[in-house]
Amino acid sequence: MSTSAAPTASAPTAGRFAPLRNDSFLRACWRQATDHTPLWLMRQAGRYLPEYCATRARAGSFMGLATNTAYATEVTLQPLERYPLDAAILFSDILTVPDAMGLGLSFAQGEGPRFASPVRDEAAVAALQVPDLDRLRYVFDAVTSIRHALQGRVPLIGFSGSPWTQACYMVEGKGSDDYRLVKTLMYSRPDLMHRILQVNADAVAAYLNAQIEAGAQAVMIFDSWGGVLADGAFQAFSLAYTARVLAQLKREHEGVAIPRIVFTKGGGLWLDEMAGLDCEVLGLDWTVNLGRARAQVGGAVGGPGKALQGNIDPNVLFAAPEQIAREAARVLDSFGTPHTDPLTSGPTHIFNLGHGISQYTPPEHVAALVEAVHSHSRRLRQR
Amino acid sequence: MSTSAAPTASAPTAGRFAPLRNDSFLRACWRQATDHTPLWLMRQAGRYLPEYCATRARAGSFMGLATNTAYATEVTLQPLERYPLDAAILFSDILTVPDAMGLGLSFAQGEGPRFASPVRDEAAVAALQVPDLDRLRYVFDAVTSIRHALQGRVPLIGFSGSPWTQACYMVEGKGSDDYRLVKTLMYSRPDLMHRILQVNADAVAAYLNAQIEAGAQAVMIFDSWGGVLADGAFQAFSLAYTARVLAQLKREHEGVAIPRIVFTKGGGLWLDEMAGLDCEVLGLDWTVNLGRARAQVGGAVGGPGKALQGNIDPNVLFAAPEQIAREAARVLDSFGTPHTDPLTSGPTHIFNLGHGISQYTPPEHVAALVEAVHSHSRRLRQR
Repeated sequence: MSTSAAPTASAPTAGRFAPLRNDSFLRACWRQATDHTPLWLMRQAGRYLPEYCATRARAGSFMGLATNTAYATEVTLQPLERYPLDAAILFSDILTVPDAMGLGLSFAQGEGPRFASPVRDEAAVAALQVPDLDRLRYVFDAVTSIRHALQGRVPLIGFSGSPWTQACYMVEGKGSDDYRLVKTLMYSRPDLMHRILQVNADAVAAYLNAQIEAGAQAVMIFDSWGGVLADGAFQAFSLAYTARVLAQLKREHEGVAIPRIVFTKGGGLWLDEMAGLDCEVLGLDWTVNLGRARAQVGGAVGGPGKALQGNIDPNVLFAAPEQIAREAARVLDSFGTPHTDPLTSGPTHIFNLGHGISQYTPPEHVAALVEAVHSHSRRLRQR
Repeated sequence: MSTSAAPTASAPTAGRFAPLRNDSFLRACWRQATDHTPLWLMRQAGRYLPEYCATRARAGSFMGLATNTAYATEVTLQPLERYPLDAAILFSDILTVPDAMGLGLSFAQGEGPRFASPVRDEAAVAALQVPDLDRLRYVFDAVTSIRHALQGRVPLIGFSGSPWTQACYMVEGKGSDDYRLVKTLMYSRPDLMHRILQVNADAVAAYLNAQIEAGAQAVMIFDSWGGVLADGAFQAFSLAYTARVLAQLKREHEGVAIPRIVFTKGGGLWLDEMAGLDCEVLGLDWTVNLGRARAQVGGAVGGPGKALQGNIDPNVLFAAPEQIAREAARVLDSFGTPHTDPLTSGPTHIFNLGHGISQYTPPEHVAALVEAVHSHSRRLRQR
């Protein structure tokens, strides 16, 4: 998409929210030049922050936090108070949609998500349907509340789990290290798996559209478990349903175009196929060489292509600040100098982790990373 | 390596063991034509077999099983009694070498491996050294015993964990889902990590050479955790040390060449770089498209290249037999018709799972897989 055709981030927004002051993230999504490489961190509002843990303790549980507008707003803004990040992301979970379908999501202390009613037989599959969006009202209320609280500081990203990733949890009932139950269903009853994925895709599309209407300025689909699929199965059971979501998403809201990000963890082998998705940005994990990915899907100056987001190993944040700076520079250098011509579009990079930040991360190390990315990426543009 | 230059599997062996009756696996390793696609299954001697569980119960523990020559021989042969597999693999573990270094390996019931003395500080790293191979005598005794028991039915594969994969367990002390400790060491003290990997590589090389001398007819390096590394780190901390092992391996024993297999789970993105390894076969997990891998590294007829091993998702074995047959055919077809000219070498495929077989696999489903691979791969050659 050329710059001139796309409504830009700096287009006037309707008066509901304050005008955006830092549009570097949105510009990079549209493959427009920025003076530094924008960055945000997956799971940036999380347990590594003591202030997050304090709010969560007040809320009593993860879902108590996510379903309360004031708390969700508070924790979403916490990392922005500490670090000059270039985007905020809604505090929520990738599994809110199946929860709204009635599967009963909970998070036991120290464990991952768990569904009280996993989907494992034909009757359970048949009973699935796109949930009443009123059951997700707490998410849309949080989006609007966060937009107001941000006062135009940085854009707000909305998100959802992908149809496949949600299905993994819906069938397994919790995290898994072998995906035996969901893959057994997939290989033995592909018809049932396709039905689950159709419902999920339509529900995710409606959910993301409602987030956009509530104020999300970009949306991201987390395909956290796409990478566990075999070649062939990935295309049929993950990619096809991500595409089904994208086909239903609103392109713009109140005159402003809404960029769409797709992140498949472990999806580097399918990058050429993901380049065909109708989205603006592809998220990459740390196994991917950014220079090679740029050559594959980043596009030429003035031509079409995907912006790339990623991809430092979150474990780098356990090293000392000077080593963090060195590794951040290595990631930025592997992408190379981003597009700098303000008059056209070209290859751009949004810095991020290759996966969510660890709860054990020292918060001051995050400050070192943010500083290193901003300063090194400015230097890169002056070469 | 051209066929004429390589001592072949059918070369006369020294009189110690019975002559080999099924050399399809070794021929495929050397990129020589076979009348069917040979197959074996990672972890084929394992908990999915009731007879294995019975022997393990008699042995009292996993290490009790692995360290007893008679038991190790018995369980290695069990899957061959049930299925017409084309290779046997030593029953052992990828972590015997660090155990022999004195780290104290154990397997709690229902859990993975655990080291009593993980390697986490400078002193522990400095104390590491290549172990006295006498402490691994039980492995070499098992290899010789299995060779005798096989009576030339199929070749025997010896193996080891890769330097990096062993290091993961040595530092973490057990399996991990984030590799935080080992990556913290790697990013903050790369000097210590390189020292661990040097010791591991030299130990693994000596260990595999002793297996070859004891009777192993092929050797495989399992880099089970190479795929968790970032691009750049994989090359420096995994691939370089796999190469260091390979450089030290015996090329032949008693006039017979010994093929070498390298399997990096999650390594599909680095296939071009792995093509540069001094080994004959590359193992692939299920995320890799075999046709694309063949084009990348399989080589041309008469030219150099790697044989490919893999790569069906073990979870396919939970579907019904007819679905297993369909998925097996899909994997064979994705590789395409293998090389068939007996006068020269060319692209070959060794069928396997993309990772170890699940303990929950119904044994009769394995029979369906073996039958499907043998029959469909014969049909493929007649097209």
